[in-house]
Amino acid sequence: MKLSTWFGCSSWLPQYNREWLASDLVAAVVVTIMLIPQSLAYALLAGLPAEVGLYASMAPLLAYAVFGSSRAMAVGPVAVASLMSAVAAGQFAQGDVALFYQASVVLALIGGAVLIVLGILRAGFVANLLSHPVVGGFVSASALLIAVGQLGSLVGVSAKGETFYQTVIALFNNFSSINATTAAIGVLALVWLWAARKWGKQVLKQIGLKGLALEIVFRAAPVVAIVLSIVAVSVLELNSVRTVGTIPTDLPQLFFPSMELNGWIDLFVPAVLIALVGFVETVSVGHALAAKRKQRIDPNQELLGLGAANIASGVFGGYSVTGGFSRSVVNFDAGAQTPMAGVFTAGGILLATLFLTPLLTNLPHATLAATIIIAVLGLIDWHLPGMLWRYSKRDFAAYLLTVVVVLLAGVEAGIIAGVVFSVLALLAAISKPHMAVVGQVPGTEHFRNEKRHKVSMVDGVVSVRVDESLYFPNARWLEDALLEVAASKPGTKALVLQCNAINHIDASALESLEKIDENLHAMGVTLYLSEVKGPVQDQLANSHWYKSIQSRIGLTHLETVRLAKQNE
Amino acid sequence: MKLSTWFGCSSWLPQYNREWLASDLVAAVVVTIMLIPQSLAYALLAGLPAEVGLYASMAPLLAYAVFGSSRAMAVGPVAVASLMSAVAAGQFAQGDVALFYQASVVLALIGGAVLIVLGILRAGFVANLLSHPVVGGFVSASALLIAVGQLGSLVGVSAKGETFYQTVIALFNNFSSINATTAAIGVLALVWLWAARKWGKQVLKQIGLKGLALEIVFRAAPVVAIVLSIVAVSVLELNSVRTVGTIPTDLPQLFFPSMELNGWIDLFVPAVLIALVGFVETVSVGHALAAKRKQRIDPNQELLGLGAANIASGVFGGYSVTGGFSRSVVNFDAGAQTPMAGVFTAGGILLATLFLTPLLTNLPHATLAATIIIAVLGLIDWHLPGMLWRYSKRDFAAYLLTVVVVLLAGVEAGIIAGVVFSVLALLAAISKPHMAVVGQVPGTEHFRNEKRHKVSMVDGVVSVRVDESLYFPNARWLEDALLEVAASKPGTKALVLQCNAINHIDASALESLEKIDENLHAMGVTLYLSEVKGPVQDQLANSHWYKSIQSRIGLTHLETVRLAKQNE
Repeated sequence: MKLSTWFGCSSWLPQYNREWLASDLVAAVVVTIMLIPQSLAYALLAGLPAEVGLYASMAPLLAYAVFGSSRAMAVGPVAVASLMSAVAAGQFAQGDVALFYQASVVLALIGGAVLIVLGILRAGFVANLLSHPVVGGFVSASALLIAVGQLGSLVGVSAKGETFYQTVIALFNNFSSINATTAAIGVLALVWLWAARKWGKQVLKQIGLKGLALEIVFRAAPVVAIVLSIVAVSVLELNSVRTVGTIPTDLPQLFFPSMELNGWIDLFVPAVLIALVGFVETVSVGHALAAKRKQRIDPNQELLGLGAANIASGVFGGYSVTGGFSRSVVNFDAGAQTPMAGVFTAGGILLATLFLTPLLTNLPHATLAATIIIAVLGLIDWHLPGMLWRYSKRDFAAYLLTVVVVLLAGVEAGIIAGVVFSVLALLAAISKPHMAVVGQVPGTEHFRNEKRHKVSMVDGVVSVRVDESLYFPNARWLEDALLEVAASKPGTKALVLQCNAINHIDASALESLEKIDENLHAMGVTLYLSEVKGPVQDQLANSHWYKSIQSRIGLTHLETVRLAKQNE
Repeated sequence: MKLSTWFGCSSWLPQYNREWLASDLVAAVVVTIMLIPQSLAYALLAGLPAEVGLYASMAPLLAYAVFGSSRAMAVGPVAVASLMSAVAAGQFAQGDVALFYQASVVLALIGGAVLIVLGILRAGFVANLLSHPVVGGFVSASALLIAVGQLGSLVGVSAKGETFYQTVIALFNNFSSINATTAAIGVLALVWLWAARKWGKQVLKQIGLKGLALEIVFRAAPVVAIVLSIVAVSVLELNSVRTVGTIPTDLPQLFFPSMELNGWIDLFVPAVLIALVGFVETVSVGHALAAKRKQRIDPNQELLGLGAANIASGVFGGYSVTGGFSRSVVNFDAGAQTPMAGVFTAGGILLATLFLTPLLTNLPHATLAATIIIAVLGLIDWHLPGMLWRYSKRDFAAYLLTVVVVLLAGVEAGIIAGVVFSVLALLAAISKPHMAVVGQVPGTEHFRNEKRHKVSMVDGVVSVRVDESLYFPNARWLEDALLEVAASKPGTKALVLQCNAINHIDASALESLEKIDENLHAMGVTLYLSEVKGPVQDQLANSHWYKSIQSRIGLTHLETVRLAKQNE
């Protein structure tokens, strides 16, 4: 690896120019306005003090700018990772507030380290274990979990539960103790945000705004809700409404975790899950944005970028960060040309931390809850289940299982159940490949499935085609299947296996082929192979079986059938 | 499922005749002589009283005769399952002898139930997750573990450890307290058994024995060792030698487990592992023997047969049983025609239990240890590691990992590590399929890899072939790979994906294809598909993407390239 391949910024920093600077600055303004309420809200969702969300929105942007490969990516706290972090830290800390904070930071540090190691090993493929139905189900169910979890804050009752069911029950039980003032603020904010998202652009266009001005005003809708609710609480002295309280105006400090080794070990699995889920979202966003400008991202470089961002977050006392979908799209639409836009955004958040936070003391939790609810409902893909049901029942089952387990047993259990199911279902599919007895299409040299085509057979020679590489999950199936075919056709003297669809033969399958050869021989049937691909034949040559089978491998299937007939 | 398919015996019982009866009776005599010392020895290896080995050698043979599908299979206690049972029951019981016995029986009951459920679901494929290198490594390492574990009994010192390392250390530490008399008996028995195995048949042939008589005398070698050592202990009054002691001459009793539900749950995973390992050995033996007589076995029927055998074992107070390799081969070679031979063997063991066991009181543990050591050393395949190394480094790695983990951390950890590694390695292989940019071989309609053949390209049209089905592990790889190809060839207007090697497209890959289509479109490149297989096209027709891609799917690759050029 050359040094330049470690630093994603080497691809744009040398060419940085005044036009890019102007575009990046403008994009940074829009994203900063969007990020301030989001950072505060997601920190609360993660169970952390509001200012931690601000910390997690500065250093990571700088680290990503140095190491990442996507031009318009905006990293920071996102909803799903915040929920996962809250659950993992909560289970670990068991009510100890200081330990909870430690755990949240350590989750980011471990996740970052794991992503960097995967990037160095160029092993980003592990994220591929998160199939589309599993990620889709996981995100939708998590969004539902988050939205329901915020209903308590929205109306001013305490309703916390680890599972969907517990939360709903707690909400019902505490329904009588709703704080009417809080509920009024929360519901008003919710309606405002929903209406702004639905009709905002339309209305702004009608009053003549366009381009960047429209974008900035549109993105400021949550800021309006925040300002109005702060004013309401301050002016009307609504003391019963739970607010954010005093936010320290300190700069982020270096954080030194004081956790013992056992704690790091306990947090390892949830940290890896959070990091991988974040990586999948980041790569997905990165691809989409890069393609729009005919650029490319490198997934292994993204591992380094996102890993560095998480380490940077943790080092400055922030928590797990991800390349967020909505903020990256906003960054892109606002014209960001390079990750320098992220650096300027970090500067904007820094200014906000220093000068705006004193004004946020009276910001109601209910307003932030409304922000979160509107944001996460946008994450749910309502069409996905129907699409999966029509396309593939197996993929639908993976989706449904993930959704159900997330809602019943929590986010980690859900993602693990989904991945295990997907892998087992894939292995099951591989373990029973499509197989066909083939015959010659008269007048041609082609062999086709006897069930689909009118074909002619050679007496005493059975031809079989297997449409899958031979791996251990189907090695024993192959033994059963070939011996079955030979036994079911009395008078068979030779069995020719057409290998044109076989890209690999692993050691288990090799052992099975040897056994098949031996067992067929015991039945008086000789095994032949035809159309073995070059790399497969090269590998077979390394086995001691090759000496015996070598003379029974034919180049084309027709040749091989003739050879078998000759040798009878 | 018809009733007859539940009972494997329906295939032979109605035709049972006098010739078969004679053959089966003779085979039963040979196998009984072989099984008596083995049953006692393996019971001690499993940490159980010697008579439990006898119990496990009766009822299971009857149950298998009713439900199994292999004609010459002999089920009963085997070495590896005995070791696994000892470890699992030991960890569960933590020194409580009564609980240890309960656990051993419950392991057989759970394992049997799981096998039957898998058989009913026709889900025997889960056993395929145990790849050949993993099973080979597991059996070899377990055999080593067993052999070393028996050294203590062989020389009369206590040396128990769960791992290889612990056992070796214990042996060294207790070396000074060797019992010389025991060691003499043990070593003499070992040498006798080894010599009998190596030269026995040769010598017996030279003195004129042949056929069945030779087989019976040869198989009686362990019986000779047992008789001689009992005589030595009795006549010379060697009281310092540890012996089997009084064996009850009771018939096996019905066993009612008094274990709580939590215990069953704790024992579930080890029970499944023992059952699956046993199933793999049983099916493998069954295939080999059936082929020699041009018969077939049905793996799902074997699940029922082996499951019933384990249940029967547990119900009568026995422990986990398996279709053993050596005893089945002996049964076969001695002429067994049907599982009725097993029924007669069970009768033989019953007679031994009633009338011979009083004679076994003075049987030294050292003699049984020698029997076990000789038996398990025969299980080790010394050629396997070299063969795997030459054939496939990945399979060798799976083998080595399994061996090392079995020796360092125990049998269960080893098998789990091996399976997880094999599955991840397979997913890694699937996640990076072989891909080639293809061009037309001049003068033909064939398209081949541009790196291997001299081919001609069409300006602005890139042709790509992927040699693997599209599943979630390679879905994101596909996005990266195709966008990379398009970006690396400036001036590309169309990309044609040749799908002749693609047997499946799952929902994740469909999503990726849609994204590729979209992202390529954003780059000014149009995606085409060619040679899509029938079933794949049928499934694609269920997606909403089909409407858009339908007109860009071509029958042959050449046609599709021409279509793409036309549309440019």
